[in-house]
Amino acid sequence: MFIAFEGIEGAGKGTAAGRTAGWLASLGREVSLTREPGGSELGLALRALLLDMKNSGISPETELFLYLADRAQHVRQVIRPALEQGRVVLCDRFACSNLAYQGYGRGMDLDMLRRLNDWAVGGLWPDLTLVLDLEPAVGLERAKRRNRFLGLEQKEGRFEAEDLAFHTRVREGYRELSRERPDRVRLVDASGGEEDVFKRIKTLLLPMFSQGFTPCAPPGSQTTKELVDET
Amino acid sequence: MFIAFEGIEGAGKGTAAGRTAGWLASLGREVSLTREPGGSELGLALRALLLDMKNSGISPETELFLYLADRAQHVRQVIRPALEQGRVVLCDRFACSNLAYQGYGRGMDLDMLRRLNDWAVGGLWPDLTLVLDLEPAVGLERAKRRNRFLGLEQKEGRFEAEDLAFHTRVREGYRELSRERPDRVRLVDASGGEEDVFKRIKTLLLPMFSQGFTPCAPPGSQTTKELVDET
Repeated sequence: MFIAFEGIEGAGKGTAAGRTAGWLASLGREVSLTREPGGSELGLALRALLLDMKNSGISPETELFLYLADRAQHVRQVIRPALEQGRVVLCDRFACSNLAYQGYGRGMDLDMLRRLNDWAVGGLWPDLTLVLDLEPAVGLERAKRRNRFLGLEQKEGRFEAEDLAFHTRVREGYRELSRERPDRVRLVDASGGEEDVFKRIKTLLLPMFSQGFTPCAPPGSQTTKELVDET
Repeated sequence: MFIAFEGIEGAGKGTAAGRTAGWLASLGREVSLTREPGGSELGLALRALLLDMKNSGISPETELFLYLADRAQHVRQVIRPALEQGRVVLCDRFACSNLAYQGYGRGMDLDMLRRLNDWAVGGLWPDLTLVLDLEPAVGLERAKRRNRFLGLEQKEGRFEAEDLAFHTRVREGYRELSRERPDRVRLVDASGGEEDVFKRIKTLLLPMFSQGFTPCAPPGSQTTKELVDET
């Protein structure tokens, strides 16, 4: 099972992916938690290049190809091997980020982006993409707070510096992707507290994982709601 | 005027491009001499990644995207600005390397490679590509000698370590590209001494540059042959 976490800056992807990993592990699943860019050794070097403010002069095409290089390596070196071992793979950002940011956000051709990504991932798309859906103004405020807290304002603040209009287009892109493929791309309301958001994610995921852990639990002992509230 | 130098390992691309740069400068032209991978600041970092033996685990798709990222940046940050200033740009390797190595050498889809490259270069293809054509066994022997001399055996020897059959396919690829576009892709016999090869290149290029330097020379004072022999 391969699940991607998507959304605008400050939507809480990293936190949600981390908590989901812990929750699924507690249900007895083997979990790989990873992210893009930077999910492989080579990817880490590319992530540093991409996030470095010094390279803000890179062209949109260059940036896209670096993301695709990172993704191609990540899929072949990390994600596919983990899936072949039966692990659940949770990934903080994946191909949908390209469609939303480069496509809807920057106006690059969506069909081309889909084809490039399909080739980069070798046909391996997530079984499910969770889009943490949030007002861009709220997300950017959260992201700024986090960056101040982490002392990252000058280092990882490149995207946050882009304007609200851009992030509004990105959010609308994610929503459009979810309308196109409701079976694969699900919106999760990311407003409110971390706990609320995580509960929404558990409610959405539980039916997918209930089969997997039923053997370990006394049959019929708990309802979905009880499991969500409790774990 | 944008000229790319192509060919298998050890064909003498770097030497030929350098001598051509010096020759054109002596004819009064402003020349930019550059190369791929590594023609931009970002590209230098990517070149280091690509050539590093530690990364020999990178997938063919990852490698291709890194080359494309390098190329996209190089075109926009270096090549196009230089051409806009009226400079002659000489580039050691360009898009044809992808077609020859990844396409003919590794069997990737040629149409896709063409489309990816066309998008990476934003339609900016060389006016002329010179393919230094050489028996792969001779080229690999030259490349090995050079690497030993430079102490690069462990650092830049990755491609040289690939087998003769691969380089034979690459060479045939270049020859096929030249048959397809004889107006744009010209073969130059790269056997024999450095001086012989350079003379062949000058003979081929002189008609293209004779207009450019005629005003500086006494009109009708020299034939093409004299100019080639003399400079």
